[in-house]
Amino acid sequence: MAIITLLTDFGLKDPYAGVMKGVILVIDPSVAVVDITHEVEPQDVVEAAFLVEEYVPFFPAGTVHVCVVDPGVGSDRRALVVSSADQFFVGPDNGIFSLVMGQGFEAFAIKNPACTLKDISSTFHGRDVFAPAAAHLSLGLSPLRLGPRVTDPVLLPNLQPVIEGDTLHGRVIRFDHFGNAITNISRKGVDAFASGRVYVVEAGGKLFTALSRSYFEHDFTCVVGSSGYLEFGFFKGSFQRKTGVKKGDAVVMRLR
Amino acid sequence: MAIITLLTDFGLKDPYAGVMKGVILVIDPSVAVVDITHEVEPQDVVEAAFLVEEYVPFFPAGTVHVCVVDPGVGSDRRALVVSSADQFFVGPDNGIFSLVMGQGFEAFAIKNPACTLKDISSTFHGRDVFAPAAAHLSLGLSPLRLGPRVTDPVLLPNLQPVIEGDTLHGRVIRFDHFGNAITNISRKGVDAFASGRVYVVEAGGKLFTALSRSYFEHDFTCVVGSSGYLEFGFFKGSFQRKTGVKKGDAVVMRLR
Amino acid sequence: MAIITLLTDFGLKDPYAGVMKGVILVIDPSVAVVDITHEVEPQDVVEAAFLVEEYVPFFPAGTVHVCVVDPGVGSDRRALVVSSADQFFVGPDNGIFSLVMGQGFEAFAIKNPACTLKDISSTFHGRDVFAPAAAHLSLGLSPLRLGPRVTDPVLLPNLQPVIEGDTLHGRVIRFDHFGNAITNISRKGVDAFASGRVYVVEAGGKLFTALSRSYFEHDFTCVVGSSGYLEFGFFKGSFQRKTGVKKGDAVVMRLR
Repeated sequence: MAIITLLTDFGLKDPYAGVMKGVILVIDPSVAVVDITHEVEPQDVVEAAFLVEEYVPFFPAGTVHVCVVDPGVGSDRRALVVSSADQFFVGPDNGIFSLVMGQGFEAFAIKNPACTLKDISSTFHGRDVFAPAAAHLSLGLSPLRLGPRVTDPVLLPNLQPVIEGDTLHGRVIRFDHFGNAITNISRKGVDAFASGRVYVVEAGGKLFTALSRSYFEHDFTCVVGSSGYLEFGFFKGSFQRKTGVKKGDAVVMRLR
Repeated sequence: MAIITLLTDFGLKDPYAGVMKGVILVIDPSVAVVDITHEVEPQDVVEAAFLVEEYVPFFPAGTVHVCVVDPGVGSDRRALVVSSADQFFVGPDNGIFSLVMGQGFEAFAIKNPACTLKDISSTFHGRDVFAPAAAHLSLGLSPLRLGPRVTDPVLLPNLQPVIEGDTLHGRVIRFDHFGNAITNISRKGVDAFASGRVYVVEAGGKLFTALSRSYFEHDFTCVVGSSGYLEFGFFKGSFQRKTGVKKGDAVVMRLR
Repeated sequence: MAIITLLTDFGLKDPYAGVMKGVILVIDPSVAVVDITHEVEPQDVVEAAFLVEEYVPFFPAGTVHVCVVDPGVGSDRRALVVSSADQFFVGPDNGIFSLVMGQGFEAFAIKNPACTLKDISSTFHGRDVFAPAAAHLSLGLSPLRLGPRVTDPVLLPNLQPVIEGDTLHGRVIRFDHFGNAITNISRKGVDAFASGRVYVVEAGGKLFTALSRSYFEHDFTCVVGSSGYLEFGFFKGSFQRKTGVKKGDAVVMRLR
């Protein structure tokens, strides 16, 4: 059975995600539709790009991932399908797939009118373009059939931390439900920068001299979380509320 | 594979929607259950009636739509199944299906004890009456078998805008996740009233002299949204918060 | 088709529940995954224990219930599978299954590395341990194969109300979406304590001299809710907000 996942910033009070499922099931009645989240912060494409990277490795080959955080809907931004690492990605061409477009990806603009709804609104391409295109892919249609090849998909700039001498400059990308602050500093980034060295990490006005293994070791913790990125927590509470740290705030690692 | 959709005001922190799925899957193990939303404003039957109209057209024939916004649960209000346009609607007889009961609908009161749970509580008919009845319908049972015909289902009054001379009086029905204010003035209503004429629209203290095509054209936009109804937005923000407009507030269209 | 249900305190803005579904569907592509709720109050194992008891009776034999409210993740608390009343329960050994471990249950520690992900993080056992173990169970694996038998699973203390002479002392366990206050006093408890007697009930500073049948009978109502427990409501409003009652507050029943 094929799988289509949905990630959007539509929230859960409107029928928008449900409508997308109706459109999908009309085309491919046997597909399993999996909600990832519909609560991406509205129009935050950077947050979405990091989220996509986090869940995709846990889905099987052939999965179609629909990702709609789309402040430019109704403009002339392209509608994209990306094929990468045996999975498919369907959504706006605004950089949302920046972190999953690895080596050897292929991208196509969705143009084939047989693969979208007949009437395309200017406000809801999730329903009119992305959902039907995804359902055709889950039925086995080649992405080549959706439209012309795209060789210059939009890539978000400045997603990676920057190293200056003995300092690595990252930032807070998002907060999870528990108030943990998740950064753009990956486990690999930590290892490459600081392996075998003594360092301090600073975030939200707190200093850490070592990474914890889990959340209950200290009141304030700095840990490589399940996302594979450095994150900051507060035991049985919210790091976000406790420190007042905000999205985009600096997270700094210094060698000593 | 049959489809049952769920729309309720139960919210997502309680097990209520999950319990309904258990009841459904015991009766029809192969049905696909699709959540539309569980975050209708508590007990707002009008909001629910407009939502239902919005997603139903995107589901295939035979779909069973369960809609539970039910302030009268435990009273003697009837439990209803409506058959309309090749789809089924299951829920309380309180007007929630007002906008989908078009020409040629049939309605029946759910009375057959073989199609409900054995014990019917006075507080949770979603679980005890509507979920099992829906599952029997998705298995192919004729709605005639659920109970006696109802010829006078409750219809909500005053859902449509009113025209007085050169002015069309509508109102705000609901706000979506982005803070867009969605009205009861349909595209058809706009066309019939103002096609080819010069007009102004007023909502939330803002004046509009033309409809936009999408949200990024202006700071404040007035657009026929994906729901097919006139709605008001604020680019990269919330019209609701920006203007303080409230549910039920007047939206006025004036010919000039 | 097998069923796996999910109850967590992960919330809905993160991809955590979606990731668990990916892990499950890789192992058992045909299972139906049903969300119960992901909005248990963070780390409130008592609330979770009562929720679990509420939905389980409505699922068929063989269902696998995954329950992850897990403040001790990363410590040496055991990972558990419980078999009880023809259903399976998978989650941390912290008392979350206290109310469903009836007579004749069996419990096992999840230790078999063939039934978990290869790399087990210290922060996300929902993904790395519980989801894969559940999927193996839904495929038909015997719980005996998951690991050694556990004869002393953690049981939460003080879940039941206490009787002192003519007074039954209970407490508020949780609030539902409508602001109803749900207690630990069951219908059975009420009947055993007060059947045929005259009594008063006090909660949130309000006195009740009789149970209502449904929410619209009075402004303030005391009713045995759909959960089977005594609960307190306010018609078309929130008992929680109206009275300021808090989780854990006393609920007292006195014979007269």
